Amino acid sequence: MANGSFSLSSHTRLEMIDVTAELQKIVREQAIDSGVLYVYNPHTTAGLLINEGADPDVQRDLLGALQKIVPANYLYRHAEGNSPAHLMTAMTGTSVQIFIEQGQLQLGTWQRVFFSEFDGPRSRKLWWKILAG
Amino acid sequence: MANGSFSLSSHTRLEMIDVTAELQKIVREQAIDSGVLYVYNPHTTAGLLINEGADPDVQRDLLGALQKIVPANYLYRHAEGNSPAHLMTAMTGTSVQIFIEQGQLQLGTWQRVFFSEFDGPRSRKLWWKILAG
Amino acid sequence: MANGSFSLSSHTRLEMIDVTAELQKIVREQAIDSGVLYVYNPHTTAGLLINEGADPDVQRDLLGALQKIVPANYLYRHAEGNSPAHLMTAMTGTSVQIFIEQGQLQLGTWQRVFFSEFDGPRSRKLWWKILAG
Repeated sequence: MANGSFSLSSHTRLEMIDVTAELQKIVREQAIDSGVLYVYNPHTTAGLLINEGADPDVQRDLLGALQKIVPANYLYRHAEGNSPAHLMTAMTGTSVQIFIEQGQLQLGTWQRVFFSEFDGPRSRKLWWKILAG
Repeated sequence: MANGSFSLSSHTRLEMIDVTAELQKIVREQAIDSGVLYVYNPHTTAGLLINEGADPDVQRDLLGALQKIVPANYLYRHAEGNSPAHLMTAMTGTSVQIFIEQGQLQLGTWQRVFFSEFDGPRSRKLWWKILAG
Repeated sequence: MANGSFSLSSHTRLEMIDVTAELQKIVREQAIDSGVLYVYNPHTTAGLLINEGADPDVQRDLLGALQKIVPANYLYRHAEGNSPAHLMTAMTGTSVQIFIEQGQLQLGTWQRVFFSEFDGPRSRKLWWKILAG
């Protein structure tokens, strides 16, 4: 399996960063006709998810509502003060798997892949692996 | 890898549709002894998840509690008005991977696979791929 | 693909159990240089997730905040009374995929893999499969 990683930077505390173009470039470069792309997020205060990318308001709504859902007034014990970011990570997941057919990443019409920063700004990494077949 | 897709229809706004029998049929038809079934949901206002299927009240409770968790009174900006559905999708995920052994899909005693409609009624699709080995 | 399972026991109602060492042992025993480890949780009232393992307060905060998020006062219909556990399972997921490189499980600096009990104490199982390549 081909594998690799790439870096990205977040610029605010909560931010959804569209990494679809980077993933599509990786798939094209590997020139694999059919298979599965695995993307893995090695961080514990950031998520990886697939959602709508057409209207940026969806991303704002997702981050705004997540902040309403995760309690700010809970007596968190973790001294770093970023327990809500850990919980958002647990709720949204750390990896995605996407099919490749005819050399193309197979996403639904409105789907884009987002790295979701919950404790930025920070320098981050994503790892990937491609299974051909 | 064998791959394909199938259609399904939701009939209400929020609905959990059990797709286990369809997935078991696909696994049987491929006649693969051992491997992994990947199921991918190409939609951004519907989730894919594994949970209890024995008592239909569990599904009602899941959808009812999700509607309590996701704020209805948040000032969502997305004009389509279905931001809560996008958030439920982000919280429940867009793909599942299930093992195949001796030609059978390996689910826990109480587990069933559900397509979770959060913005129905709609015509939907699921994509699948089977890795043998 | 090599595959197997192992047992574990929870001792309280909600508990995060670190299974990283067990998974690392499995990967070492299989002596696979490069590939993907799939871990699958066959239960419907327990989750499987990757999060910070360095400070045990993070685990306490995660479980504490989850209990605040999932409504306790909702009129659940499921007679067993463990619908909140089913919802926490739906929110945190039932499987993880982790890369293997140079014979080692590839986790981020602060990441550990946790079996998350939401309806203990109970005897539980985890299933695994390794794809080499």
